[in-house]
Amino acid sequence: MSDHQLRVSKIRSGTVIDHVPGGQALRVLAILGIDGTGGETVSVAMNVPSDDMGAKDIVKVEDRELSQAEVDVISLIAPEATINIVREFDVVEKNRVVRPEEVHGVLQCPNANCITTEAEPVESEFTVLREGVRCVYCDTLLREDIAQYIQ
Amino acid sequence: MSDHQLRVSKIRSGTVIDHVPGGQALRVLAILGIDGTGGETVSVAMNVPSDDMGAKDIVKVEDRELSQAEVDVISLIAPEATINIVREFDVVEKNRVVRPEEVHGVLQCPNANCITTEAEPVESEFTVLREGVRCVYCDTLLREDIAQYIQ
Repeated sequence: MSDHQLRVSKIRSGTVIDHVPGGQALRVLAILGIDGTGGETVSVAMNVPSDDMGAKDIVKVEDRELSQAEVDVISLIAPEATINIVREFDVVEKNRVVRPEEVHGVLQCPNANCITTEAEPVESEFTVLREGVRCVYCDTLLREDIAQYIQ
Repeated sequence: MSDHQLRVSKIRSGTVIDHVPGGQALRVLAILGIDGTGGETVSVAMNVPSDDMGAKDIVKVEDRELSQAEVDVISLIAPEATINIVREFDVVEKNRVVRPEEVHGVLQCPNANCITTEAEPVESEFTVLREGVRCVYCDTLLREDIAQYIQ
């Protein structure tokens, strides 16, 4: 693939998150706590053509590897994402994200009457389904735009 | 400069906003109303080494040219920025942003008692100074992080 088609270039070392659904890259950055002010060297391409996805986003974070918890949350908004670990310009590890069966303390239930959103010391818990995520406590199903419920 | 150093590649046509202060790229996107969900093809590099700035950000928006109003607002957070218009991979126009003398209706005055923030039909107005921007009505001076006051 030519330089022009690549849009964002290879990095020396760090993590490349590829096959993110088009338009979700800024949400991935938010999950990683990156807004630029921390000085992290990051490159992002949004809505680039993809054979299998139509349009996709790519996020490259230099000199950083992701925690399993970060990958779990990314999987909720980017179930097809691949996480590539790069060292000296070579991809040394390439993994497809695996959606966890459940996530704890990651999402805020939008149901104001849910026990997890009241003044109780109850951590949120969602079951991860094919069609979305479901609150274990009040059965609220989140289908779309799960990222907006990330705590 | 090699492909590795470039980090984000050349675009066929659109606008390249270069020499943005390190860490401000996401604010530039916000000024342009871009969050990815509109399908715009955008690439961003944050905190890349720069000879004259230490670290800088670059934003490349494909198939779009900016309005003067957008450039004016960008100049408030990126006074050294250059705006390059690209057609067929060539830079056909290169302009340094020029800070306007004043901005109208762009920033929200943080002073809760300012007439522009009360329930009056008074548009905000700030004088653009070397050290920041000053509210014409209540003289509040904003020095840092002006982006957070963008309406």
